[in-house]
Amino acid sequence: MPEFANDIFLRALRREPTEYTPIWLMRQAGRYLPEYNETRKRAGSFLALCKNPELACEVTLQPLERFPLDAAILFSDILTIPDAMGLGLYFAEGEGPRFERPVRDEEAVARLAVPDPSQELRYVTDAVRTIRSALAGRVPLIGFAGSPWTLACYMVEGGASADFLRIKTMLYQRPDLLERILAVNADAVAAYLNAQIDAGAQVVMIFDSWGGALADGAFQRFSLEPMRRVVSALRGRSGAQVVGQVGAQSGAQSGAQFGTQSGAPAAADGARVPVIVFTKGGGPWLEDIAGLGCDAVGVDWTVNLGRARERIGGRCALQGNLDPMALMAGESAVRREAQRVLDSFGAPAPGFGHVFNLGHGISQFTPPENVAVLVDAVHSCSRRLRTS
Amino acid sequence: MPEFANDIFLRALRREPTEYTPIWLMRQAGRYLPEYNETRKRAGSFLALCKNPELACEVTLQPLERFPLDAAILFSDILTIPDAMGLGLYFAEGEGPRFERPVRDEEAVARLAVPDPSQELRYVTDAVRTIRSALAGRVPLIGFAGSPWTLACYMVEGGASADFLRIKTMLYQRPDLLERILAVNADAVAAYLNAQIDAGAQVVMIFDSWGGALADGAFQRFSLEPMRRVVSALRGRSGAQVVGQVGAQSGAQSGAQFGTQSGAPAAADGARVPVIVFTKGGGPWLEDIAGLGCDAVGVDWTVNLGRARERIGGRCALQGNLDPMALMAGESAVRREAQRVLDSFGAPAPGFGHVFNLGHGISQFTPPENVAVLVDAVHSCSRRLRTS
Repeated sequence: MPEFANDIFLRALRREPTEYTPIWLMRQAGRYLPEYNETRKRAGSFLALCKNPELACEVTLQPLERFPLDAAILFSDILTIPDAMGLGLYFAEGEGPRFERPVRDEEAVARLAVPDPSQELRYVTDAVRTIRSALAGRVPLIGFAGSPWTLACYMVEGGASADFLRIKTMLYQRPDLLERILAVNADAVAAYLNAQIDAGAQVVMIFDSWGGALADGAFQRFSLEPMRRVVSALRGRSGAQVVGQVGAQSGAQSGAQFGTQSGAPAAADGARVPVIVFTKGGGPWLEDIAGLGCDAVGVDWTVNLGRARERIGGRCALQGNLDPMALMAGESAVRREAQRVLDSFGAPAPGFGHVFNLGHGISQFTPPENVAVLVDAVHSCSRRLRTS
Repeated sequence: MPEFANDIFLRALRREPTEYTPIWLMRQAGRYLPEYNETRKRAGSFLALCKNPELACEVTLQPLERFPLDAAILFSDILTIPDAMGLGLYFAEGEGPRFERPVRDEEAVARLAVPDPSQELRYVTDAVRTIRSALAGRVPLIGFAGSPWTLACYMVEGGASADFLRIKTMLYQRPDLLERILAVNADAVAAYLNAQIDAGAQVVMIFDSWGGALADGAFQRFSLEPMRRVVSALRGRSGAQVVGQVGAQSGAQSGAQFGTQSGAPAAADGARVPVIVFTKGGGPWLEDIAGLGCDAVGVDWTVNLGRARERIGGRCALQGNLDPMALMAGESAVRREAQRVLDSFGAPAPGFGHVFNLGHGISQFTPPENVAVLVDAVHSCSRRLRTS
């Protein structure tokens, strides 16, 4: 029996030939789906939903019931790590995430420590195990975390920010202090992603949502380098223990590493776990990001996919990059824009991989029927691209 | 008598040799200066200040009294045009600009018309004349306008927006409607900038603050092309009447065109009026922007200046690109970051021009003494670069 009913997403990440372009959507389990809002209401709050493995599993599967998506992504939040660090995450109605105890002085920085994923973040690994079991090999499951820099933005600012005044003041005034935060965050993210891998995540993704707010030079030092520390510490990578650690519910198959060129490999169930890195606004630094040793680079809609492919397509798969707002238009516009993204990536060829996605999370105002149109358009147009 | 006491800014825009790198700052007349807040209080409101030529002149000159900046910029707002179109601009306390009558349907679009700069926008040209007179040739005066796309964002959204949901829905669903708005805006911006030139503006700048929100492809169609329509319609450019129109207070000197390669020329006082185009987040499209026939391209802090110089430095001067938040740190950090920007542009060379600026407007929280440090650092370090 094959491990997956549908492994096209994994094959695209490995830049192997695929019969069509796989698609999943950032925030595919979310507020644009009435059934999600129903479950969230039952949970009581967004945070309660994240912390309940059964309900997190339920909403993770909801978009797969509606649409033939090629991957599932763990339902969770990027701020679980700073919450587990004791900063007191809460959601102010209509104002997004906030921390009760932001990290703003030397003492607060000194107190930061890497949370134990098997304790404070147990609800996340439990959710991963539950979802893996419920998926039963239908499609691969993606685990994820925020990037060290992106987490630091929330931790220092105390919430979302338009100008990043506090953290950038720290960056320019006390880079040593910021680097201490980033080092703790990097180790926390690596431990967290490894725990997700051990629990059954088959791909992991790093969301560097605010990397694009940094100046050239500062990005490399304060976002890229901490991400390098994360990637190299992931299971089976150069900085990590290669000894197989087997997730509770994942059928262990020893030695079944894929023969890919990176030589990196082997986690939970014997499969190499691909890593996707997505820096929103990271277009200027695609070569740097590809140099992290990740398997795929996510790109937003400002990036021309064809040019990105020329720059890094021989080293990494690309993931993206439809403007989420294209889903607000009618069926013909959605089909036209899907085709445009596929065309911009260009003809499928050996050694190149494309995973269709949005350039950012789906809007809560998206009509669900347009997602159905998009998934159908990507699947059917990309099949045609391969036979023409 | 020379026309200017200090024309180094103009020489940098023309990519002629300069003895140091000129500097001015976006929003240099603004809330970080106590004297500005004083004048604004006297005016009653931000909008009243914009609409009072004497007070607009007063605040325009304030930063020049404090710092040896190499250019002055008209104090005004990018939303004067849609206000003159009758959309009812107002400022909600702490919430930024709003329009009473946003443009959201076919009827509202059909009603849009190009305002007459000599009528509805008379207060702006009056301010330009007043400032030119008060400057008395000390440094050049920059006039400006928002880009057609950026104005359209505010007009359709009704204010600032995080996701551009309304205008992007229009873009994907009814591109014809959006293009009608952009055509009116382009003609309005061109007429407005020409009126500023006639009144004495010696450089004009187009602020494409929201161009970076567009997808690759959409940027070219909905932001770049309308800007091309503007640039080509400016006084002395290919699409405009070359017949000299003389501003009230500008001493007409006929035929004194600069011998630059573009062949474009001649406005108000006989001098070719350079055009700067600044698309925030425009890094992916620098070649496209340089292809507009502008004299300088403004870049934000995500752009590596050295790489930008390789890409377009032979065709245009570059303006930028310090992260405004670097001014929140102490003196040594400000000097270090100024040096870093100068170094990234690289050694001065014939045919290349650099105007130091921020990558976006200065923050209202900036300590004014740090601006003094920055201006001194840019002037002194760039002089050293030329003698070493």
